[in-house]
Amino acid sequence: MMTEFGLIEAIRRGCEALPKNDFEGIGDDCAVLPIGEGEALVYTTDLLVERIHFLREAATPEEVAHKALHVNLSDVAAMGVRPVATLLSVALPREMMQGDWAERFTQSYIAASKACGVALIGGDTTASERDIVINVTAIGRGSQSHLKRRRDARVGDLICVCGELGASGAGLRQILEGRGDTPLARLHKLPTAQIREGMLLGEWPEVHAMMDLSDGLAGDLKHILKASQRGAEVELEQIPIAEGADLDTALSGGEDYKLLLTLRPEAFEELKSTLHERLDCPLYPIGRIIESPAAEIRWTLRGEKVEGQREGFRHY
Amino acid sequence: MMTEFGLIEAIRRGCEALPKNDFEGIGDDCAVLPIGEGEALVYTTDLLVERIHFLREAATPEEVAHKALHVNLSDVAAMGVRPVATLLSVALPREMMQGDWAERFTQSYIAASKACGVALIGGDTTASERDIVINVTAIGRGSQSHLKRRRDARVGDLICVCGELGASGAGLRQILEGRGDTPLARLHKLPTAQIREGMLLGEWPEVHAMMDLSDGLAGDLKHILKASQRGAEVELEQIPIAEGADLDTALSGGEDYKLLLTLRPEAFEELKSTLHERLDCPLYPIGRIIESPAAEIRWTLRGEKVEGQREGFRHY
Repeated sequence: MMTEFGLIEAIRRGCEALPKNDFEGIGDDCAVLPIGEGEALVYTTDLLVERIHFLREAATPEEVAHKALHVNLSDVAAMGVRPVATLLSVALPREMMQGDWAERFTQSYIAASKACGVALIGGDTTASERDIVINVTAIGRGSQSHLKRRRDARVGDLICVCGELGASGAGLRQILEGRGDTPLARLHKLPTAQIREGMLLGEWPEVHAMMDLSDGLAGDLKHILKASQRGAEVELEQIPIAEGADLDTALSGGEDYKLLLTLRPEAFEELKSTLHERLDCPLYPIGRIIESPAAEIRWTLRGEKVEGQREGFRHY
Repeated sequence: MMTEFGLIEAIRRGCEALPKNDFEGIGDDCAVLPIGEGEALVYTTDLLVERIHFLREAATPEEVAHKALHVNLSDVAAMGVRPVATLLSVALPREMMQGDWAERFTQSYIAASKACGVALIGGDTTASERDIVINVTAIGRGSQSHLKRRRDARVGDLICVCGELGASGAGLRQILEGRGDTPLARLHKLPTAQIREGMLLGEWPEVHAMMDLSDGLAGDLKHILKASQRGAEVELEQIPIAEGADLDTALSGGEDYKLLLTLRPEAFEELKSTLHERLDCPLYPIGRIIESPAAEIRWTLRGEKVEGQREGFRHY
């Protein structure tokens, strides 16, 4: 059986047969197009499907709009540049055109775009037979020298996260238990892309690799390790666990949308205080990049090695 | 009840409250981003939903892939520039991951991209509960001076189409009658974007306004007229009707994806022979742009005025 990762992999392999037309290939949070004078554009796209990513009964149109926008802007932020525009596709069941869902969704999407300083430059709308479908393509723009890629982790780098983990996963659990309006449930429903954080981190050459945490730390860190052909040693006691979450959720729960980065260790203290002072954003060191061709993660707890594979979740 | 045009209109109005970030606003086949040195990028996005745009039983994965790509490239071609890349989102019902649909779709999408010289730079894949959903975002690149917009039709311009009309609509009718493998049915299933034609027309400053015919001549011409605040006189006997189609289908059938343009009349003969010689593409004059603040179309038949509104189709 093909998984969604298998499908992505098939697409990735096929791409290599295609002309590049000056774009960098697949493999990061965004595709990159250098446009001259040291500038680059970046591109990402995300598809949200009702019953898979949200439930109409459980999520308001405002929440769906916010999430559709922010999960895309998060990918742009993870490249270290500013999101500048989106294209929005919406399919709605015919009967929903009669209610106010479409209007509320649209207004919220526009309000959220405004709050993030992002243009809306195009779209497509259509009917569907049954499910709501939203696709957003986001475009970012910035200095080529600010771009952060997954492949750039170096041996000795500190691995850091820009916030506590597991809140979204814990919130999802509460929603599934029928408690849909707890603070954690709201965090799950209204994830916030670390846009200003990403732009600030882009300006620091000491930040080497970066990505956003959408599928859980354990799985996502693997992407950086594979792209960089390095390994990692992660200290479980250093993982910042969000209030109300536990270690397992912090490691494997998805959709926290906090930035994960690797950093020249000498820059840590200054970057930490800069992030704190300018954006009130924490920076937690959780481990180090090590030599390891197999992209292995060594988990430790108070200096002792811990066994067990901790993987991100899949939609399949 | 809100229609899809109502939803698009709500989005369009909302956009005006958003920053532009150097992009031109909504209103053409593509959004435009000037990037310096006389160059521009253009963007469009299209969402295809099973049961609305295609039937799994009636369309092969190869046909869906081809169509998803070409309807987007057609929008780029209609701007007068070269399509350079796409982003592809695919949602598939879980049970379809077990068959070869995903593999065949992916291979076809890549083969079609290769044939068009277009890169695939990103994507998203996910499960869906029931329906196949495909979203494509296409990017084009070219000289700013080549860009053709809907708003640039001028009084006195010849209105022309780059091919016979109605084939796709007639093919759809045959498919609905159970004849799925006639030549017209195949044309409906495998529409071809006029990529090289669009790029050639982009180079001609005498071509003023341009768009691709996706919703039918009668409805689409209105878009040019409204954007240009002009009217049109169209001679019904000049409409090039595809073999097997009739006048009504040529006017109101959608999805022909032929280019519709307005042209300085003095350039017609030379452009016609250039298109014919270089690309074996016909150019049919069907009327003229006239003064008319109401964006009215005056239909004539052998010099006599004909009454009746002929509109494009809606998905709602």
